[in-house]
Amino acid sequence: MAMNVAQKLIDAHLLEGSMTPGEEIALRIDQTLTQDATGTMVMLELEAMGLDRVKTELSAQYVDHNLIQEDNKNPDDHLFLQSSAERLGIWFSRAGNGVSHPTHQQRFGKPGKTLLGSDSHTPAAGAIGMLAIGAGGIDVAMAMAGEPFRLKMPKIWGVKLTGELPDWVSAKDVILEMLRRHGVDGGVGRIIEYHGPGLDCLSAMDRHVIANMGAELGATSSVFPSDEAVRRFLEAEGRGDDWESLAADEACDYDVEDEIDLSGLEPLIAKPSSPGNVVPVREVAGEPLSQAYIGSSANPGYRDFAIAAEMVKGRQISDWVSFDINPTSRSILETLVRDGHVSSLLAAGARLHQAGCNGCIGMGQAPANDSNSLRTTPRNFPGRSGTPEDRVFLCSPETATASALRGKITDPRDLDFDYPRVEEPDDPVVNTRNLIAPLEVAEARKVTLIKGPNIASLPEFEAIEDAPELTILLKMEDDVSTDEIMPAGNEVLPYRSNIPRIAEFCFRGIDEEYVQRAEETGDHCVIAGGNYGQGSSREHAAIAPRYLGLRLVVAKGFARIHWQNLVNFGVLPLRFENEKDHEALDTGQTLSFEGLHEALRDGHEITAQAGDRKISLRHDLTAHQVEVLLEGGLTNWMKRQRDD
Amino acid sequence: MAMNVAQKLIDAHLLEGSMTPGEEIALRIDQTLTQDATGTMVMLELEAMGLDRVKTELSAQYVDHNLIQEDNKNPDDHLFLQSSAERLGIWFSRAGNGVSHPTHQQRFGKPGKTLLGSDSHTPAAGAIGMLAIGAGGIDVAMAMAGEPFRLKMPKIWGVKLTGELPDWVSAKDVILEMLRRHGVDGGVGRIIEYHGPGLDCLSAMDRHVIANMGAELGATSSVFPSDEAVRRFLEAEGRGDDWESLAADEACDYDVEDEIDLSGLEPLIAKPSSPGNVVPVREVAGEPLSQAYIGSSANPGYRDFAIAAEMVKGRQISDWVSFDINPTSRSILETLVRDGHVSSLLAAGARLHQAGCNGCIGMGQAPANDSNSLRTTPRNFPGRSGTPEDRVFLCSPETATASALRGKITDPRDLDFDYPRVEEPDDPVVNTRNLIAPLEVAEARKVTLIKGPNIASLPEFEAIEDAPELTILLKMEDDVSTDEIMPAGNEVLPYRSNIPRIAEFCFRGIDEEYVQRAEETGDHCVIAGGNYGQGSSREHAAIAPRYLGLRLVVAKGFARIHWQNLVNFGVLPLRFENEKDHEALDTGQTLSFEGLHEALRDGHEITAQAGDRKISLRHDLTAHQVEVLLEGGLTNWMKRQRDD
Repeated sequence: MAMNVAQKLIDAHLLEGSMTPGEEIALRIDQTLTQDATGTMVMLELEAMGLDRVKTELSAQYVDHNLIQEDNKNPDDHLFLQSSAERLGIWFSRAGNGVSHPTHQQRFGKPGKTLLGSDSHTPAAGAIGMLAIGAGGIDVAMAMAGEPFRLKMPKIWGVKLTGELPDWVSAKDVILEMLRRHGVDGGVGRIIEYHGPGLDCLSAMDRHVIANMGAELGATSSVFPSDEAVRRFLEAEGRGDDWESLAADEACDYDVEDEIDLSGLEPLIAKPSSPGNVVPVREVAGEPLSQAYIGSSANPGYRDFAIAAEMVKGRQISDWVSFDINPTSRSILETLVRDGHVSSLLAAGARLHQAGCNGCIGMGQAPANDSNSLRTTPRNFPGRSGTPEDRVFLCSPETATASALRGKITDPRDLDFDYPRVEEPDDPVVNTRNLIAPLEVAEARKVTLIKGPNIASLPEFEAIEDAPELTILLKMEDDVSTDEIMPAGNEVLPYRSNIPRIAEFCFRGIDEEYVQRAEETGDHCVIAGGNYGQGSSREHAAIAPRYLGLRLVVAKGFARIHWQNLVNFGVLPLRFENEKDHEALDTGQTLSFEGLHEALRDGHEITAQAGDRKISLRHDLTAHQVEVLLEGGLTNWMKRQRDD
Repeated sequence: MAMNVAQKLIDAHLLEGSMTPGEEIALRIDQTLTQDATGTMVMLELEAMGLDRVKTELSAQYVDHNLIQEDNKNPDDHLFLQSSAERLGIWFSRAGNGVSHPTHQQRFGKPGKTLLGSDSHTPAAGAIGMLAIGAGGIDVAMAMAGEPFRLKMPKIWGVKLTGELPDWVSAKDVILEMLRRHGVDGGVGRIIEYHGPGLDCLSAMDRHVIANMGAELGATSSVFPSDEAVRRFLEAEGRGDDWESLAADEACDYDVEDEIDLSGLEPLIAKPSSPGNVVPVREVAGEPLSQAYIGSSANPGYRDFAIAAEMVKGRQISDWVSFDINPTSRSILETLVRDGHVSSLLAAGARLHQAGCNGCIGMGQAPANDSNSLRTTPRNFPGRSGTPEDRVFLCSPETATASALRGKITDPRDLDFDYPRVEEPDDPVVNTRNLIAPLEVAEARKVTLIKGPNIASLPEFEAIEDAPELTILLKMEDDVSTDEIMPAGNEVLPYRSNIPRIAEFCFRGIDEEYVQRAEETGDHCVIAGGNYGQGSSREHAAIAPRYLGLRLVVAKGFARIHWQNLVNFGVLPLRFENEKDHEALDTGQTLSFEGLHEALRDGHEITAQAGDRKISLRHDLTAHQVEVLLEGGLTNWMKRQRDD
């Protein structure tokens, strides 16, 4: 059977299932990536599972998100992660070493391998012929413990690239064109595979830009073939031996097809406040701006900074624009220093920030109120910059820099100088300092985890009882998001490593007294309407209420990831058989069950008693998930696997 | 009369009084410096005064403190300051351009001139023969409006330097030796004047290190002569024409004398948590550390970074030490990039941060909990780093770098390589981009201030009535600090430009219901014990309660600066004639006055009626201060001056 690149990657890692779109498959995971915002919970989960050493070919822990150290919480997390990495045989990339995605591609990326990461932009590594997927923390923890990753087989979406990019148009404009055509859900349930002669004008880092922002289309992943451009990239990084060819068979098919003529593209920009809100730059040209921002995993490469440097060389940015340069990694920064580009940027008036994610995830560099900020970052959701009334535009480095020079949004083709084309260097600085290799097993076993005062161990959770009586502590309607269940933001997120502390904020926006009632009541349940748990995948929205005694959620319907997170942490999710029962129930009533364990194992129908009334409920768990649930969640299940 | 340098500077600017220590003098102020943490209030005060244009020879507004932009409040402040600077004829140094003190010395510092700055480290400019003094915001605002600065004539403390600094010992060790000898109050009421042959081995930036941290001795200022080293410095900055000689007369006297033999110094370190807690490095050598930090206005020069770079060149910092490099200014960073030093630092594993104050004032780079942090910054007060349980040591760049290399506190003389002596360059990069010159008067008058949603105008305050009846809303005991009156910290300080908003936190630590009672009551008074208003000089501790209706504070005694701040904002400070009356009074009672205005003008005795009881009170105001008070404060008084 002739296969495309995505199919070859899946086929080589397929442990269960078949490659029929929509069917559940289980994949072997070769590599994992965690970052500090999600990694502390992963390490606490692995500690709770009692894992001795990771079972992947390679796992890497990056510190790139929480680099602003206003108090001890972030640096304490960094030390905890470093000691956990030592203990478990994980590579550790220290604070300031760089953003996970480009750094992983440079140091560890390998064509033909699978990568699971607890960050939604993990698919960026598809740039060099990897199958790279973002997932929740405990899913990555399970992969680190050697378990397969399960998902529904996506459709493969072939996007043929033809032609060559014109001057002043670059890789960012390609993915913005995809977003312009298909919107922010155009890629749901799909892997995007780029192919065709247009690939020749895209370096491995250009492809990273495109694969990274496939996440903004909702795609499961994006893949590119491993060709000469990938070989050049790996050879420049001193890793030519890790290259291997990976190409689609000539006769292969795609489930969906599309084509982009690169030579027909023009500079594009996503207006506030969605990556899908794309228009040509010329449509918004002339508007003032207060900030232009170069960096992030969406434009991480040497070229993306060097083009900005060449454009401002000998020129001066506008007096009223903050020109923020956010280097991706120490290595790329060193190369930019060596080649004179940092000097050009500083001389023109740029602010040079530490290497990391920073402003991309609202950690610094927030723009002024109600003023335009042009960024090369991947997302412009409302308020993500940190400024509640923000007006963030997404664009290429060329467009951001042209606008910084002119002090107003500018189509770079309107500048009065020639395009200073820049290539990725053949001899980048390769700096592996602050990338700390795993210890030998014997040494690793001697390591003690360093836990600051804000780092709590993962609480132990017991299985739901066979005949529980659970008081309803909250009644909710439709579309409750995980942001409402477990708020994010600066006040709450620094407690991400401390479940007892972060639990104090549970359901704050819905009912300020929930936490107190839960503490008084102990085991309890909540009821909800449809689409319960939509939005962010953060698993704290399951763990923290579970910590407070939540054992059961009965809803009209669930959002997929939160439903999975509930099961992962031992909270039973049930659906109303008759939606009218939602209306009949209220806070303070009690739901009673008998023979619940057997009922879960034997079928999908469950009956609850609410006073005199019988309530018919259903579960959608697989047999495997029932067993996980009846262990009290995945960490317990893993411990049992290990003990058996 | 033979004069020393300090006397010559004072004599040339003396408008009132005579140079007898302890006597009040009034000085003409040539230059002012404001930074963003104090500057927004200064600009609001100048707006309230209705000032059209600053009357100094030169005023400069720096943005160096609040560079972390987690939301719009800081960038909004930056735009407000930039527009205010344009409006009033002030030089504006944009965010990322550098720390005020070294930048001011490089671009504007001029031997023989006076400089008043709303930052306690303003005396650093004494390095080049200026008389530079730190003061409260409205004192600087008054100087910008052309008013003289009043202070008590300090004693002049001559410190003779002899010998030459040995290898591995640098300027920081000189000021640490001063702190070791004299402690954190050894300089109170004094100007420290350095003289003698030992000066020959100290560059202008070395002298900046010493003058900067004179603030840690409590000194009014520190001065150095303007000699060949100063000429070299100004010539290198392209400002040789601004140099002039300023030397002490040979026969001059000093009020106090001391001597340091530089050749006898060794590496010193201030242990947690006071700059006065100084010991030789060898006494604490061997202790582990988690952070080494190079930068801040206390070690701002090219040399201070270049010596670190030369020490780590081709070497690697410890895996467990965060080596934070905090460049002082864009220009110094550019020079360090040009000369290869930034490459050396990055290659060794340093984290390079944006140019500014940052970690020195707890804005990022907080250390991990309960672990040692070695810093070249000027202060290590408990918690100033942002970490409540911090353990911050102050030392030279040599000691911090040696310790980063070894992973434990290290006397740099114990390293196994030769001292890589570094000199200040003769050809530094001079980058005046992002240093924006004042507009011409006509253009300036067209400027509209840019006020984000968190920037409120300074409220207008009326004078105290002639026969007020004021309810006592709080009764306090001795030693209430300004931190208790108006808390600082991350939750509160971002509201520094918004008096109505910050006022919601008044007296929170003492009585959580004060604000609500004040809002219900309107005009009111409080009573207190001795030393009322000790601690930080922040004027918000006077303005915010005044905004809530505080018109009178009756105390057993006042701390000097807060007493001045109360007067400046129209709050009458009175002392109990009989301390027993403090015991007799309580919250809820009313103090009534009659003919208060005449009583204030006629003498120092004031009588209040509390029910049947007569209370004898005293005021300590000068005639000038009475007039300020009866205008409702300094901004009103200035408006009246302008209108008359």
